[in-house]
Amino acid sequence: MSSLTERMARLIVHGERPYNAEPPLTRLRARYRTPAEDFYVRSHGDLPEIDAAAWRLSVDGAHVGPLDLSLADLRARFPEATVTATMQCAGNRRADMRAVAPVSGDPWDGGAIGTADWTGVRLGDVLRAAGVAPGANLHSDLHVAFESQDVVEGRPYGVSIPLAKAVAGETLLAFAMNGASLLPEHGFPVRAVVPGFAGVRSPKWLKRITVQDHPSTNPMQADDYKLFPPDVTAETANPAKGHTIETMPLNAAICEPARGARLKAGETTIRGYAIAGDRAIVRVDVSGDGGRSWHQATLEHEAGAPFAWTFWEIVLDLPSGERDLVVRAWDSAGQTQPARPDETWNFKGYLSASWHRVWVEVA
Amino acid sequence: MSSLTERMARLIVHGERPYNAEPPLTRLRARYRTPAEDFYVRSHGDLPEIDAAAWRLSVDGAHVGPLDLSLADLRARFPEATVTATMQCAGNRRADMRAVAPVSGDPWDGGAIGTADWTGVRLGDVLRAAGVAPGANLHSDLHVAFESQDVVEGRPYGVSIPLAKAVAGETLLAFAMNGASLLPEHGFPVRAVVPGFAGVRSPKWLKRITVQDHPSTNPMQADDYKLFPPDVTAETANPAKGHTIETMPLNAAICEPARGARLKAGETTIRGYAIAGDRAIVRVDVSGDGGRSWHQATLEHEAGAPFAWTFWEIVLDLPSGERDLVVRAWDSAGQTQPARPDETWNFKGYLSASWHRVWVEVA
Repeated sequence: MSSLTERMARLIVHGERPYNAEPPLTRLRARYRTPAEDFYVRSHGDLPEIDAAAWRLSVDGAHVGPLDLSLADLRARFPEATVTATMQCAGNRRADMRAVAPVSGDPWDGGAIGTADWTGVRLGDVLRAAGVAPGANLHSDLHVAFESQDVVEGRPYGVSIPLAKAVAGETLLAFAMNGASLLPEHGFPVRAVVPGFAGVRSPKWLKRITVQDHPSTNPMQADDYKLFPPDVTAETANPAKGHTIETMPLNAAICEPARGARLKAGETTIRGYAIAGDRAIVRVDVSGDGGRSWHQATLEHEAGAPFAWTFWEIVLDLPSGERDLVVRAWDSAGQTQPARPDETWNFKGYLSASWHRVWVEVA
Repeated sequence: MSSLTERMARLIVHGERPYNAEPPLTRLRARYRTPAEDFYVRSHGDLPEIDAAAWRLSVDGAHVGPLDLSLADLRARFPEATVTATMQCAGNRRADMRAVAPVSGDPWDGGAIGTADWTGVRLGDVLRAAGVAPGANLHSDLHVAFESQDVVEGRPYGVSIPLAKAVAGETLLAFAMNGASLLPEHGFPVRAVVPGFAGVRSPKWLKRITVQDHPSTNPMQADDYKLFPPDVTAETANPAKGHTIETMPLNAAICEPARGARLKAGETTIRGYAIAGDRAIVRVDVSGDGGRSWHQATLEHEAGAPFAWTFWEIVLDLPSGERDLVVRAWDSAGQTQPARPDETWNFKGYLSASWHRVWVEVA
């Protein structure tokens, strides 16, 4: 295994402590399943060093007979499951929103996203073993809280998801990514994987799961990762009134050519990704003239849809001059993206999902 | 019961044969559950006259032991179920798209939508009684085709939905609307109600249900109600390449004040609806200045969500002059609507769902 230092050198590093980094878009688009060492990293505290042999997961809370599981218990007691799912940061593409007005947080380009085969056990199986009734997903007032071994401002990292999502077949406690044990920066030995939801709800370095009648009161859940209207500022924000970011909105990005590339006139291959939260991508439109005319890209779906991204590709005949390449996607509800970043701007810079633009120079 | 002629006089009639009509928006906004006589009507052929005592429903197809059910059988054999759901035409708000370029079809304003308590039996219960296995919703390659007693261009009306949606708890064979038998123009004696999907997939005057391994080959399914890109025309459209409209996109409309209203300066109440297909509405923004500044409306949810609309209301202080009122909604995936109708324009005028604008004169 490569060292963390070696892996950091492969990525665009936004911060070292906490460690936040993303791959360049051209490399991101090279493989449908993102190699672990190219997968974006979003941390909120220092990376914990965990001895897998000593690691324990406790399960407790309402309607639950407590469990205390080792990694061997987890593997032995529950059937293994693999889900192909895309993980993305709520701040992916924040850099595009910064062009409108300042926003807080790291200036992620479109690389705070990646797709993997996640292998582990179904969280629903674990909860059922703890006594949560099979029909409990109808209790929409129950929540599953996660607590982790990383520390954020003096407290363990903690978030929660609705019970219905916790018992859905796609939600895992994962110990492997693309067939290998998790890397330390991706949550070794066990992390949650909540497909379709923002990455913040898929905690790494898990240590405790609690079934409860309210969302987590941890600041990560109660205060952060909320979507606010455009007129709200850091000073006026009331977290209780913000929208808790869970399922991610429709989004798409051009990965090739890179922004600012110098190209030869003529047929040019344009490639990227599109993703629609819990829906499927049904169409991707690409423009070579800033959005005046549109052409339909070829879509590459794989088995994981709708929780995994769709790769797309198109060949456009580009005349010489400055060209504004644009992409917009359509989901299975016939919905498409807003055109301009000011339409979704918010002071936290979350859910940046307007048409993605890449300016190129064609000679 | 009023006569059909009396009920037609209450509505804005786009056509008499087939009969297509919608209520004015101010009346639509008056009641959360739309009275049957104010509910939009979309027909594709003449209204069939059906003797309920002689009516039969046949269920057949793959994996099915055939059933032949009278209305009394349907009521006696299956538990009654009521779902609060919004029905809307795929052409709702088409008039806004016509402002960009001509489109085919009736120029619906924002009234081709309505919400009711639908009472009937669960389609899933009927299919299970016919032998469709409980886990059959995993067979994503199966479809449930409907055939009706109305005739469109010489053929019975026919469409289909995926089996997974057919066995979902919200999908009904309904015989009542807001507690009373269906009116003839709403499908008496029995219609399908497929919440979240475009109205075309909820056929009225049902006569046959077939489980099959392919979508309906009826032109209503195979050719019509497809979403095409903006460059496709009636001459170049290939129905096999269009997106089959099922779940409807995020949408919102201002119902009060009416377009062109003359108002007094000062505090003005603005009301409307918002709807998000199979998702929930989490925020509604209203602008009194054409979209430069936004304010958050108060939301009125009811039990049926996410398959029922959200009513919203806000008081804005409008200064004198011409004012451009605008609404945009946000769904539970943090997604919002496109700003301009040209961003979603298609020659059929389907899924018109950009920001809704109402110009008023404030004195």
